[in-house]
Amino acid sequence: MKLKEMSDNLYQFVEDLFPLNRSLTGNGVRQTLNYIKDIIPELNIYEIPTGTKCFDWTIPREWNCNDAYIITPEGEKICEFKKNNLHLVGYSIPLNKEMPFNELKKHLYFLEKQPDSIPYITSYYKENWGFCISYNQYKKLKDGIYKVKIDTTLENGYLTYGEVILKGEEEKEIFLSTYICHPSMANNELSGPAITSYLAKFISELKVRRYTYRIIFIPETIGSIMYLSKNHDVMKRNVISGFQITCVGDNNSFSYLPSRQGNSLADKVALHILENYCLNFKKYTYLDRGSDERQYCFPGIDLPVCSVMRTKYREYDEYHTSLDNLEYISPQGLFGAYKTYINIIEALECNYIYMANILCEPQLNKIDGLYSDLYTKNNYPNIGNILNFITYCDGKNDLIDISNIINLKYKDINNFIGLLIQNNIIRKI
Amino acid sequence: MKLKEMSDNLYQFVEDLFPLNRSLTGNGVRQTLNYIKDIIPELNIYEIPTGTKCFDWTIPREWNCNDAYIITPEGEKICEFKKNNLHLVGYSIPLNKEMPFNELKKHLYFLEKQPDSIPYITSYYKENWGFCISYNQYKKLKDGIYKVKIDTTLENGYLTYGEVILKGEEEKEIFLSTYICHPSMANNELSGPAITSYLAKFISELKVRRYTYRIIFIPETIGSIMYLSKNHDVMKRNVISGFQITCVGDNNSFSYLPSRQGNSLADKVALHILENYCLNFKKYTYLDRGSDERQYCFPGIDLPVCSVMRTKYREYDEYHTSLDNLEYISPQGLFGAYKTYINIIEALECNYIYMANILCEPQLNKIDGLYSDLYTKNNYPNIGNILNFITYCDGKNDLIDISNIINLKYKDINNFIGLLIQNNIIRKI
Amino acid sequence: MKLKEMSDNLYQFVEDLFPLNRSLTGNGVRQTLNYIKDIIPELNIYEIPTGTKCFDWTIPREWNCNDAYIITPEGEKICEFKKNNLHLVGYSIPLNKEMPFNELKKHLYFLEKQPDSIPYITSYYKENWGFCISYNQYKKLKDGIYKVKIDTTLENGYLTYGEVILKGEEEKEIFLSTYICHPSMANNELSGPAITSYLAKFISELKVRRYTYRIIFIPETIGSIMYLSKNHDVMKRNVISGFQITCVGDNNSFSYLPSRQGNSLADKVALHILENYCLNFKKYTYLDRGSDERQYCFPGIDLPVCSVMRTKYREYDEYHTSLDNLEYISPQGLFGAYKTYINIIEALECNYIYMANILCEPQLNKIDGLYSDLYTKNNYPNIGNILNFITYCDGKNDLIDISNIINLKYKDINNFIGLLIQNNIIRKI
Repeated sequence: MKLKEMSDNLYQFVEDLFPLNRSLTGNGVRQTLNYIKDIIPELNIYEIPTGTKCFDWTIPREWNCNDAYIITPEGEKICEFKKNNLHLVGYSIPLNKEMPFNELKKHLYFLEKQPDSIPYITSYYKENWGFCISYNQYKKLKDGIYKVKIDTTLENGYLTYGEVILKGEEEKEIFLSTYICHPSMANNELSGPAITSYLAKFISELKVRRYTYRIIFIPETIGSIMYLSKNHDVMKRNVISGFQITCVGDNNSFSYLPSRQGNSLADKVALHILENYCLNFKKYTYLDRGSDERQYCFPGIDLPVCSVMRTKYREYDEYHTSLDNLEYISPQGLFGAYKTYINIIEALECNYIYMANILCEPQLNKIDGLYSDLYTKNNYPNIGNILNFITYCDGKNDLIDISNIINLKYKDINNFIGLLIQNNIIRKI
Repeated sequence: MKLKEMSDNLYQFVEDLFPLNRSLTGNGVRQTLNYIKDIIPELNIYEIPTGTKCFDWTIPREWNCNDAYIITPEGEKICEFKKNNLHLVGYSIPLNKEMPFNELKKHLYFLEKQPDSIPYITSYYKENWGFCISYNQYKKLKDGIYKVKIDTTLENGYLTYGEVILKGEEEKEIFLSTYICHPSMANNELSGPAITSYLAKFISELKVRRYTYRIIFIPETIGSIMYLSKNHDVMKRNVISGFQITCVGDNNSFSYLPSRQGNSLADKVALHILENYCLNFKKYTYLDRGSDERQYCFPGIDLPVCSVMRTKYREYDEYHTSLDNLEYISPQGLFGAYKTYINIIEALECNYIYMANILCEPQLNKIDGLYSDLYTKNNYPNIGNILNFITYCDGKNDLIDISNIINLKYKDINNFIGLLIQNNIIRKI
Repeated sequence: MKLKEMSDNLYQFVEDLFPLNRSLTGNGVRQTLNYIKDIIPELNIYEIPTGTKCFDWTIPREWNCNDAYIITPEGEKICEFKKNNLHLVGYSIPLNKEMPFNELKKHLYFLEKQPDSIPYITSYYKENWGFCISYNQYKKLKDGIYKVKIDTTLENGYLTYGEVILKGEEEKEIFLSTYICHPSMANNELSGPAITSYLAKFISELKVRRYTYRIIFIPETIGSIMYLSKNHDVMKRNVISGFQITCVGDNNSFSYLPSRQGNSLADKVALHILENYCLNFKKYTYLDRGSDERQYCFPGIDLPVCSVMRTKYREYDEYHTSLDNLEYISPQGLFGAYKTYINIIEALECNYIYMANILCEPQLNKIDGLYSDLYTKNNYPNIGNILNFITYCDGKNDLIDISNIINLKYKDINNFIGLLIQNNIIRKI
């Protein structure tokens, strides 16, 4: 896979799906999942009926929107859903009504500080309606009678989600989660589904797959709670590392949000990759959390799930506005995040515990090409990356531990591990 | 209890008891304890006979003083015990003798650097006599024959101490200790008995009392050793937190002296209160110790006892001189220390371990008033103090642990715990 | 033993043995060991036959050299082994051959940056030959036919090493290792054998010896691997602290290289001595290792062996050249390192765990001379080094732990331990 080709694929994904009206439920979610299934045919799509109990929560009614707009007293059509689905407050109830501006304006949302942007607002769990509008447009509105048209349905139906299970040599699982409930925004959140889809494809094509992979595409919060209510037993038994994939589309520095326990295998590997391959990444604490790790790391669930992101939700001005658009992200930004997750997955796959096969240092000059035979002042054949590595193969440290102790990238060690195993110097345990 | 009323009570306590001649033993101690019993009628007063063995120590003879003074060659009466009991070295033996200045001066103690102050000196365990005098007065003394009169008794008798036991719902105990062996000094040490007496009163009036309280008023060192020799078994079994209350009368910054183990519950709670409610407090190490924690934390005793003080013994110039007087302390200083100990006690009482009752985050918008229903860019109902708290209710962290993790004062958490329990979201374990 | 006498002994040792041609094997090693046996008659000398398997290694053939030199086209004799044995590459095969300069120069080694020095080079495990020459001399050589004479033998024979076992009251062992395979160089490595020999003598003369001492004089790498292949079972069972003694001859600051585990008893004691008795010592990490600790700390061997050195191998320009000579080291430098190891051994010998014999502080004024009887403002008889020490005698901390906690040198504590035991205040456990 070439850099250019993959960068384009990822960006194309976001472009293609950008116009759809995703929400917790509805046809926008179904269309999104069908598009993903073209990339990763192992995707299974599930429908959970309205009213299903999931721990403290209940699957809400399904929401769909045909059209929505406002007609001004001057007869101008504004806040057209068909032009930008952010104009309509998510889960707005149907409405067809005339009203004076004084009443209408209680249902209009805007951002004075970002006067050109349309904010993104929802009201999932309380019946309500509203429109989002740029402040500059809002300021032009005058008194008079407005006609409000909201052609939505809020009915018993389904919550739709996708799941890919890719069996590995081991039952132990790597878990990837991303969400598909945001309408026309790019970094948060079409970047996550884009990268997760192509990661799933990459993993499905691995010639050797050590771990089993559980990869899900769900609406945020209610989706992860629903998924855990069905799967937390098996996940608690098997998941050794998980990643919440979100906000991975821009081209700024990486950031890291730990799991609640903070020192899981997922955290260790993520930090090794970030420290060795991603300059100047930013570290958050678990108090800065805000996505589905809130559920995955909840007491009693306790999964080892952390996040590697580009610019984190809430930390950029364009967040949750119409400015989080196709210009905010870039093919390079998407590809860099994709590559970072590939590194994480490869590091996990090769993160074995090794044990030296012989007592005392092996006589490495017996192995062709490894060492010079001449011991001079500036040639210390007895010390070097290979002997440093073997010296910590004590049956307790794993590959990443040793990488961190001897200050080498995991790939630099992986380069010579085959030779050492072949020569019977170390063994996996 | 109003601030003003309590401040006045505490200061009045010190004023009332200031003139008494307290020492390891004697009537000054008895009078002091009787005064305290008026505040906290649950006080039991015990008398331990001279000669009683307590570990490596023996209860000394009882010492009382009727009068003591010196007559100068000029016929002037100086160093009058009745004017200031600090003039007489503690435990001075009886004497009625004329002597030249050369002999007398071997028994005179003064502080050249604090020429107006009378030092405080004792000789508990070796028979001796002496007078303490300001350096300015000492300089005026001339050669000649002096008449020395010390009308003391040093006879078999009793060591007197007080104990309050306030039963709680649990057998586990909070332990408070203060000492009553210092004569006319205010910060060290009438401030400790004042605050401890009114803390005992406060605790005795608690409507719900989770822990049992063991509160003692003893002479320093020999008193704590004697008390431990009688009670260390039950204390070792039950005491979960203890505090040595001393030097709590001035109005300067707080200070903290850890227990020997350093990370006990007492230390954790004291530090939480100091860090959240007392600016710029000073931290000492256990090597700076000097009061009865020396006994409580001794190997084999190992009680979790630390100290929260104002200006620590030895750390202020007035310490152990006549300048540690009623002007050195203040009603405000006493009240602030009293309030700090109330906070410590309340924090201990409410320091339960909680466990989330449901898996995954609860749907808090079902509870009236807790959360907005509208999810906007700047309103993150999913993150906040309440969810932060629940997120760490994993059955391992106690309330103070979580307060420290999520950077909240324990009171701010306690405010909403009732609501969470009532709504079945968390439970005590 | 006087400072002057011991300094002279140590320096004399290096002077006497400097000219010998030591290598992995051969008569230079035998002569060196015989000299050491004069100092410490308990030395046993062992001979291990060529071909003996030791883990991954095999004892090489024995190498001896009678003579070696080059005759220039002008008839000048250069690179004379008899003038400086560094001229000949270690383990050079026999040769008697004429050749043009172009061929000869492939076998000549020099250091352009240190043009007056002869480098030290070996080729133990691949048959080869060569001469080492100063760059200044090398530059003068002209084209023409050179006569090369190498009168060496490389035949089946023995690897020779020495071992001293000094039994103690306990089976537990202190292990000292040094190497005797370097030809005419002083800091690296006649300083190590010099100090180790006189340490062995010091230990053999101890009136009371708590631990058993295992002290070995071996060739580096192959020697320690051979020794471990014969002794690692008993060593793993018994060795509680070990030290690789090397580079201890110059008069610069001390340095410390930890064991692989890093926090062994050996490390703790070495650090206590360095921090309290050796100013400005330098700390290395185990990644900087390069001597026989590589074998002693190898996974599966796992002995607690660290190094206290003067200027570490590789860290000084003279290292592995003819400039590491008798002028590079000094009697004072040797003596200082000797004294430091004596401190380490004494600290280990007295490093017991003590337990306070009584509950609560003992009444120390009962012991003559320990404390003043008068309690004044500036005389705190209750706090001091003795009570600080007893206060941490909890049956868990050892002497060095307490020294570190209360910021005292181990000797300052040891001074009063006898008195405390005698008075039944503490006991060994």
